[in-house]
Amino acid sequence: MARDPVYYADYLKLPTLLSLQSPESGKVGAPMGDEYLFIIVHQAYELWFKQVLIELDAVLDGFSGPAVAERELGRFVGHLERVVAITRLMLAQIDVLETMTALDFLDFRDLLVPASGFQSAQFRSIENKLGLDPRTRMTIHGAHYTSRLSPEDKARAEAAEAAPSIRARVDAWLARIPFLEQGGWGFRESYRAALDATLTREAEIIAENPMLDAIGRGVQEAQLAQNRAHFEALFDADAYEALRDKGERTLSHRAFLAALFINLYRDEPILHLPYRLLKALMDVDEGFTTWRYRHALMVSRMIGTRVGTGGTSGHEYLRATAEKHKVFSDLFALSTYMLPRSKLPRLPASVEGALGFRSGVSAG
Amino acid sequence: MARDPVYYADYLKLPTLLSLQSPESGKVGAPMGDEYLFIIVHQAYELWFKQVLIELDAVLDGFSGPAVAERELGRFVGHLERVVAITRLMLAQIDVLETMTALDFLDFRDLLVPASGFQSAQFRSIENKLGLDPRTRMTIHGAHYTSRLSPEDKARAEAAEAAPSIRARVDAWLARIPFLEQGGWGFRESYRAALDATLTREAEIIAENPMLDAIGRGVQEAQLAQNRAHFEALFDADAYEALRDKGERTLSHRAFLAALFINLYRDEPILHLPYRLLKALMDVDEGFTTWRYRHALMVSRMIGTRVGTGGTSGHEYLRATAEKHKVFSDLFALSTYMLPRSKLPRLPASVEGALGFRSGVSAG
Amino acid sequence: MARDPVYYADYLKLPTLLSLQSPESGKVGAPMGDEYLFIIVHQAYELWFKQVLIELDAVLDGFSGPAVAERELGRFVGHLERVVAITRLMLAQIDVLETMTALDFLDFRDLLVPASGFQSAQFRSIENKLGLDPRTRMTIHGAHYTSRLSPEDKARAEAAEAAPSIRARVDAWLARIPFLEQGGWGFRESYRAALDATLTREAEIIAENPMLDAIGRGVQEAQLAQNRAHFEALFDADAYEALRDKGERTLSHRAFLAALFINLYRDEPILHLPYRLLKALMDVDEGFTTWRYRHALMVSRMIGTRVGTGGTSGHEYLRATAEKHKVFSDLFALSTYMLPRSKLPRLPASVEGALGFRSGVSAG
Amino acid sequence: MARDPVYYADYLKLPTLLSLQSPESGKVGAPMGDEYLFIIVHQAYELWFKQVLIELDAVLDGFSGPAVAERELGRFVGHLERVVAITRLMLAQIDVLETMTALDFLDFRDLLVPASGFQSAQFRSIENKLGLDPRTRMTIHGAHYTSRLSPEDKARAEAAEAAPSIRARVDAWLARIPFLEQGGWGFRESYRAALDATLTREAEIIAENPMLDAIGRGVQEAQLAQNRAHFEALFDADAYEALRDKGERTLSHRAFLAALFINLYRDEPILHLPYRLLKALMDVDEGFTTWRYRHALMVSRMIGTRVGTGGTSGHEYLRATAEKHKVFSDLFALSTYMLPRSKLPRLPASVEGALGFRSGVSAG
Repeated sequence: MARDPVYYADYLKLPTLLSLQSPESGKVGAPMGDEYLFIIVHQAYELWFKQVLIELDAVLDGFSGPAVAERELGRFVGHLERVVAITRLMLAQIDVLETMTALDFLDFRDLLVPASGFQSAQFRSIENKLGLDPRTRMTIHGAHYTSRLSPEDKARAEAAEAAPSIRARVDAWLARIPFLEQGGWGFRESYRAALDATLTREAEIIAENPMLDAIGRGVQEAQLAQNRAHFEALFDADAYEALRDKGERTLSHRAFLAALFINLYRDEPILHLPYRLLKALMDVDEGFTTWRYRHALMVSRMIGTRVGTGGTSGHEYLRATAEKHKVFSDLFALSTYMLPRSKLPRLPASVEGALGFRSGVSAG
Repeated sequence: MARDPVYYADYLKLPTLLSLQSPESGKVGAPMGDEYLFIIVHQAYELWFKQVLIELDAVLDGFSGPAVAERELGRFVGHLERVVAITRLMLAQIDVLETMTALDFLDFRDLLVPASGFQSAQFRSIENKLGLDPRTRMTIHGAHYTSRLSPEDKARAEAAEAAPSIRARVDAWLARIPFLEQGGWGFRESYRAALDATLTREAEIIAENPMLDAIGRGVQEAQLAQNRAHFEALFDADAYEALRDKGERTLSHRAFLAALFINLYRDEPILHLPYRLLKALMDVDEGFTTWRYRHALMVSRMIGTRVGTGGTSGHEYLRATAEKHKVFSDLFALSTYMLPRSKLPRLPASVEGALGFRSGVSAG
Repeated sequence: MARDPVYYADYLKLPTLLSLQSPESGKVGAPMGDEYLFIIVHQAYELWFKQVLIELDAVLDGFSGPAVAERELGRFVGHLERVVAITRLMLAQIDVLETMTALDFLDFRDLLVPASGFQSAQFRSIENKLGLDPRTRMTIHGAHYTSRLSPEDKARAEAAEAAPSIRARVDAWLARIPFLEQGGWGFRESYRAALDATLTREAEIIAENPMLDAIGRGVQEAQLAQNRAHFEALFDADAYEALRDKGERTLSHRAFLAALFINLYRDEPILHLPYRLLKALMDVDEGFTTWRYRHALMVSRMIGTRVGTGGTSGHEYLRATAEKHKVFSDLFALSTYMLPRSKLPRLPASVEGALGFRSGVSAG
Repeated sequence: MARDPVYYADYLKLPTLLSLQSPESGKVGAPMGDEYLFIIVHQAYELWFKQVLIELDAVLDGFSGPAVAERELGRFVGHLERVVAITRLMLAQIDVLETMTALDFLDFRDLLVPASGFQSAQFRSIENKLGLDPRTRMTIHGAHYTSRLSPEDKARAEAAEAAPSIRARVDAWLARIPFLEQGGWGFRESYRAALDATLTREAEIIAENPMLDAIGRGVQEAQLAQNRAHFEALFDADAYEALRDKGERTLSHRAFLAALFINLYRDEPILHLPYRLLKALMDVDEGFTTWRYRHALMVSRMIGTRVGTGGTSGHEYLRATAEKHKVFSDLFALSTYMLPRSKLPRLPASVEGALGFRSGVSAG
């Protein structure tokens, strides 16, 4: 208990922290204020990436056992919601960086070649821990993303890629969720009947829409046919695997159905936290996607179509990753399978009872 | 089913909506673009106030019965979180209004006398439905807030004041929550023991703090003594009522204890949604508080210490309401009673069991 | 002077305003709170669109004469910065709308067919007034955007398309700006020399970059060659017109050069406001682009790959317009032509003098 | 030119940067994820404070000479607007920190005693460089703010206090601005006449306002009388100094008048950048004020009325500084002196000419 009193600057290691900004411009002349900004914004990003990794590791640990206690799900949601808050902050950092003009950036950017943000091993690890499918990862002129990393950074990113990802663990957890068949009732059959009614209505909407001409109607009918095929795949394991092979799905069949069940019956008490967990995963994905897109816009505004310092065509690479590096696109796809609340089949009382609490919060 | 096709502009009543902007400046000369902005920002506020009232009414309805089903709590949280999102938007609208300069505002503000934002019957109703204590409501130079309202608006605001508020209904709901005493275990005793240890530690921190001189130590000791008195009141119904009479508490004793219990044991599955509900109420309160404060800053920047159009000294009134018109200050006060997670007494297995689900989400 | 006292609710036409929300769900059952949200968010959008149009009209009027006084430019920048502030608010409104779930939206969205946000005549007019090139505008399954509008709305959008746009007027204003040739000095020659040095350095960066393999180097060299061709077009009116014919440029040659000059020499007092005007135009463009993109993400999350109420495949249309409906892409392209500040040719004293003030702010 | 290729992680000193997080909780058990968050958010603050100091120093340097060239003002505005952008980011960081609950914070906060955010020497230096009047600075239980700092930090903060501040330099620059008297025309007389008319109108508004009863009217008349006294002080150097002695003004008389002139005639080309400079100073002030206030709300939510780790009553200290530590309150006060644009006396042609450019942007 006889600890020394803690001093703010020592606790935060400020003397060292505030000495880590060494502008390259300072090596060939006077250090530029704008390069300090450039360094500090990137150092702030890396500090936040470290925190994101801490949160993701906490979630990974939590999901590592054979069972997940309900009382822990709230904590996992908390970790993911913190990541979402951090992605919002990352977005706000772009607003600060945009106070730098191209005239000023160009004065030191050549000094940075060939360094590049692609080389952030922490960011690559974040993508890997979330579960970015290596097959969908963008290459850099055909080269693997690790080709630009130092041996240590490469090892680090690869370790994250080799370890189980949140996507994989969430898949396993979803696949274990009970309730989809219970006492004679089956979720698939019940849902299928409701879905058929919806698709019929969808077809009517297309047929009746006075705004559609023949071309538009054809396009819509093709889209509906494609949706129907996707719907069929829900009920046919082989068809589902075919979608997976084409890269249109990443979750396992069983996990996808469980995620759908959770989304549809989120109001059941026991499904509330599972639902919030899935929603938080989507929010994390959307947070990074939005950041990548805004980042691309900013780079385009800063250097135009010039070559990036890392040797790629800058903003086009970034813009492409915004779309491609989504991890939980299956969860976003679930919205296609939603039903109107009033058309949602009521659960049998036995199932509903099983999804409730032992006691009641307001029991008198 | 034979409905007419819906047209965007008809659905939104755009021809009427877009004709409701009649600048006073247009009556004495050319209408000013900045007065259009002034009208539109206030109309947008009133549209959003209408939505806030819809959400609050949904919560009030939900809490009107003798019992609240767990499966409904998630929906109430959703209503309140939407209100929070709307308060953020209200904040963003200030950024737009701040693009107007004082030079331009002054050109038409005299034409608006004696109209004033105080006269928003919807905003007064929001405060009343949330449960603003009429005793703490600011008067306007000693006059009641309704004295500025038209008869219809007065009736409306008073109806909202007379009807049960969310604060009153949440109080009743909290007071009904079971679990605080169960099978020989009592929350009060268990918590009191843990709290004593914390207060002892708190006193040590003050005694040992090398940064405190005699004056500072005295101030801190007085603060701690006051906290101790508040803590004592937790366990003494009469002392608690005394605090209530002084206006330092608004919730009933039983409700306050239940709110404390929920905050401390929020990880228990059955308490998760009740916790989120209390948190959402605080977020609503903080949202309106922050908005009032920023609003006050903006007015101060726009008209300085001039007389407001409604005849009050503008920003000082607004700044005072930011502090005074908080509704759920008791919930904020709970943070004083929190314990470190590691010092939180473990619930007996019987109680913990009672707080869990009938089945398990990941049961194999 | 004998005006009636103004009352808040009358001034804002609140009785009418607050009666304009008629949910379709209310015609077939109980009106849904979420449909109120849907209506109110769209009504708020239309109110803000009205304000955007007021600001754009003020800019258009300002630029309509043969000359623009310097003392007016600040005012135009103010109008555009207000539009930027409004686009930020539009973004924040998406956060509120996202509190609605697909389950709840689907309960009333079929009732809205075939209405659609494409039918916002005000938004089409904003695009037209900004100067969206009709050739780049997205069609809806091959049909013209006006095909979905009522006769009045069609007339309105077409009038905005037929009238001079901000892009056209800014082009004419830029083309008139003097200073590009003055007393023997010519901007083109001076800039060209500096640019050649930069391109040579750019080629070295590619040649020396140790991170590039043969493929990457080839890609970069092709990009540089393309940039060189674009640079050449700066100095060759025919080549520039060829780019324009291909749709790669929209500004006139003379205007493009003037915009480049302003961006490079923005620190000269007389060019400061012209620079801020161009920057504000880019901010407006980026504001709408970001909003369209986030809107697309939200729709994708809400309805998945379903058919939109208006009969398009919803989010894909929106995502495509985010890219395609940019109006001032030429100004963004200028960043490709920037020089490092230290490589910027100094203006001859005679030109610099001409760009300054008659007196000095701090003249003693 | 033979520089080594730059590597991302080396450039940003990542191996060191990412090793500077040493939770105290790790010394007495397992390090807590929430303490990492606590450290990282504070380290990020300190990084941004460093950047703020860089920007403020650039402004201080720029204002150090006997004259400030117009072409430099734009640059100073840029520095200050970057500071504003950073204050917005600081606000966003609170959102991230608020994802930590009191339960979790309390688990390590005792370990931090007596460290405190008051000990941020960089933040104290920011306040000092801006020009916080030492007389208005809050004491900590009567002790000077430097009493909590280490000798090095104390020296640093005191050096910033001893050096000329931005407030002082801006004051000197404003006091030198010409144009207030020119060729027989005097700003004071011209303004005074317009002001009298406005005050007369103000008195009428109070007299005629049907919403005011006797008490309200009395309050308003007292406020108007006080404003009148302030107005008189504008034209009476001794009365102005009396206000200054009372701490109601900090700028010199001459500087205050110049700031008023600039605010009123901001549309004149030569006054545009001076106006934006003053506006940016207010934005900086408002940015820090808003941050302090939100910070206070957050602390109140986190620890309630407990003693802060630094030995103060936490949020009350912070809330008080939000109000008291404003530096440019005089500039905010200017809004009281604004006139309606239509009542603004037109400048004589000779003065207006002197405020214009040698040439015209659209000449020709």
